[in-house]
This record gives sequence, structure tokens and C-alpha cells, in this order.
Amino acid sequence: MKNMDVLHKIKGGLIVSCQALETEPLYGSDMMAKMAVAVRDGGAVAIRSNSPQDIKAIKKAVSLPVIGLYKVEYPDSEVYITPTMREIDTLIEAAPDIIAMDATNRLRPESATLENFFYEVRKKYPDMLFMADCSCFEDAVKAEKLGFDVVGTTLCGYTEETKHIVIPDYDLLHRMTRELNIPIIAEGGIWNTEQLKRVFEEEILAAVVGTAITRPREITRHFISAIHKEQ
Amino acid sequence: MKNMDVLHKIKGGLIVSCQALETEPLYGSDMMAKMAVAVRDGGAVAIRSNSPQDIKAIKKAVSLPVIGLYKVEYPDSEVYITPTMREIDTLIEAAPDIIAMDATNRLRPESATLENFFYEVRKKYPDMLFMADCSCFEDAVKAEKLGFDVVGTTLCGYTEETKHIVIPDYDLLHRMTRELNIPIIAEGGIWNTEQLKRVFEEEILAAVVGTAITRPREITRHFISAIHKEQ
Repeated sequence: MKNMDVLHKIKGGLIVSCQALETEPLYGSDMMAKMAVAVRDGGAVAIRSNSPQDIKAIKKAVSLPVIGLYKVEYPDSEVYITPTMREIDTLIEAAPDIIAMDATNRLRPESATLENFFYEVRKKYPDMLFMADCSCFEDAVKAEKLGFDVVGTTLCGYTEETKHIVIPDYDLLHRMTRELNIPIIAEGGIWNTEQLKRVFEEEILAAVVGTAITRPREITRHFISAIHKEQ
Repeated sequence: MKNMDVLHKIKGGLIVSCQALETEPLYGSDMMAKMAVAVRDGGAVAIRSNSPQDIKAIKKAVSLPVIGLYKVEYPDSEVYITPTMREIDTLIEAAPDIIAMDATNRLRPESATLENFFYEVRKKYPDMLFMADCSCFEDAVKAEKLGFDVVGTTLCGYTEETKHIVIPDYDLLHRMTRELNIPIIAEGGIWNTEQLKRVFEEEILAAVVGTAITRPREITRHFISAIHKEQ
């Protein structure tokens, strides 16, 4: 049976994404576990984490729910957030509370459609909670129909068709909360407290902040770009 | 001879403070060295760092100038940023480019005044650059007279007499830039890009951002306090 308690636990709260790719200065599961402790102490209700090794380290360090994903690039697809069953199977062993995946209409590796892929995933793991990382309203509608447990705006602004959109896209969130019945997580582009307050004006389940809290290189760049614009 | 080049190197840039006390989740020199790499990659022009061990680790990891300080609490004084000659002597071994110290009018341990203390410090280390961490305009005037090399607004908002002041105190910065000849560093309370742009409207040498970049626990709290105010 699905553990819907997890969704209640995160309701109204801030989920903090603790991620660093291999190319980043803070890369490493020990580092991410310390980050998770820091943001838990700061009041985060859940952690979003990439890769089985980071999820395991974080689950050892904190008892908060973890939204796990696994970023892997394949040569034949633009989908990199939990693209195939291989990533799902490996994630399951790390025991995240929710598994997030790309839920755009883009083809996955080996030309798999989201529909076919998620059908297999759900059959194999009927009791797991799955989060659909959507790029637009249509993605979210489809994710709800396919039986995802929660939808996020994660990929809005990050696909070819949405890269022109200024995020957070409050209109998208507004429409999703009005027209869907599935819980909605605001994710992407939240850099300051004003933006966070604004997304919580919509009837969302929770919001994710990542870069603005746990990626000091990008935060430094963000500050510096403000000075340089000025001069 | 003093190495004034350091001041030229940081001119117009963002200094990032990478500090974690023993009570904080990210405590540790290895962690602070990684933070320093991250913020260097993000474009920081210098690092502000606490304790000889962190300074040594950071200097090994990055070639940026380091503003070093040493926080030690003494039972007989409220001054904790580089309070006595013991901290100065130990810092010198770690070879920071600038040493920062409390430059308020509060008595230091063993009832030492800033005047007497800095007279001894300057006599012992004539070629070192010293930054005065000030709480108000009068502190900065005195620091310039005493022969400090740079003054900062670090302690404005953090002393009994200034704890009511909303920081960054732009009026204080404005008055300092108009009435003093010594280079001025804006430090304290810069949480967002608007505040950073605003301090750079004054003729300052550089600005320091710390918590908003390198303390994920406090950034999380900052975001969460915004949601809770709303609800």
C-alpha cells in the first residue's frame, strides 16, 4: 500500500534540493549529507536528492522524507531525470520516499514514450510514490491521468519549448491548482522570499528550493551578475 | 612594506565569507575549503575566513586573497572577533592577506582599549593589512586615525548600541564614504541582489556576503520565515 503519510508530512512546507553533480565543487555524498543536516536544522520538511549514493547518505543522516531521482545522460535522448527502468531499479534499493522522473512528452532512451515507460514502472512498483517533473500544463494533465502521485513544475523553463518562459511561472501553477486534482509541488526558479511567498498563494502542496540554498557557486554568480548589470 | 595590491585586487568585487562555527552542520576546514572553491568558481574576489585552520585550508585550495579573523570568546569581554594578541600571533602564522578585528569602543579582554591594543599590534606587525570591523560611524573615524588599512560595517546591528538598526545601513555607508579617506567594505545584512546593488551605489571598495551564500541552515530559515509570516 502506498504511504500517503509522506504527502501529509510535507504539506505547506519547504523541500530543499541538495544536489551537486560530479563537475561541481561540493560533489560528494558526505557533503550532501551535511547539507541535508543543515537544511533539516533550518526547518526543511523534505530533501530532494540525486543518485542512489546521495540518497543513501542523506537517509542515514536525517529522518526526513526524501524525493529521489537519478540523473543519467543517454546519447539518444534529452531526458536525463530518471530516464529508464535501470535508474528506477537502482533508486528503489536506496529507498527514497518518492521517486521523481522527467514527465515531459520527449522520448526517453530507446524511443520509449512516457506512457509506456510509466505503465511498466507502475506495474513493477505499485506501492511507490512517483513525482512527475513537468514542463507545462499538458504534461501535468497527462501525469495525473497516468497515475502519478504528485506533479511538479520542475522542468518548466528547461525544455526547448519552454526555455523562453520566465520562472517561477505563476500562471502555470494557478491553472494546475484549479484544473487538476493531484497534489502540486512548485519547483524551479525560486531565488528569493518574495517568489516563495508568491507560489504559496496558489494551493500547492509544497515548494522546492535548491540552487538558492545549497549551491554556493551559483549563488555567488547570481549576486555578481547583479553588480555587473549595475556597472 | 604593506602589500596594497590586495586592495586593488578586490576593488569593486564580491568578497564571500566562508565560516562555520563548531556548533554548525558544515563545521570543518575541509568543508570551508570546498566552499571557498565553489565561491571562487562563482566569481568571488576574496574570501573572509575564521580561524587559523580554516584560513590555512582555504589558502591551500584557492589563490584568492583571504581576510582572516579569529573568533574567540573571553569571559571578561563582549569582543570576540580577534580580541587579543594571542589571536593575532596565531593568525599571522596562517598568513592571511588582511587581518580583521573588532574595532568597536568596547573593552577587550583584560580591559584593553582598542587604542592600546592596536598600537601594540601595529608596532609588532607594521607590514600587515588590518581591517576594522566597525559598528558605527565613530568607530570608523577612530579606526582611520589609528592606522587601520580598511574599515567595514561588519558589526553594525550586532552591538548593544546598534542592535535596533536595520542593516545594511545605507546612511552609515554613505556618510563613511563621504567623510573618510580610508577604503570601505560593506558587510552585514546583505541577503539579496537588490541590497548588494544598493551598497554598490556608494563609493565602497567591495562588499562581503556570507550567510546568504555559505550557510544553508540560515538560508533555509530565512525562506521558511517568509512562508510562516504569510500564513
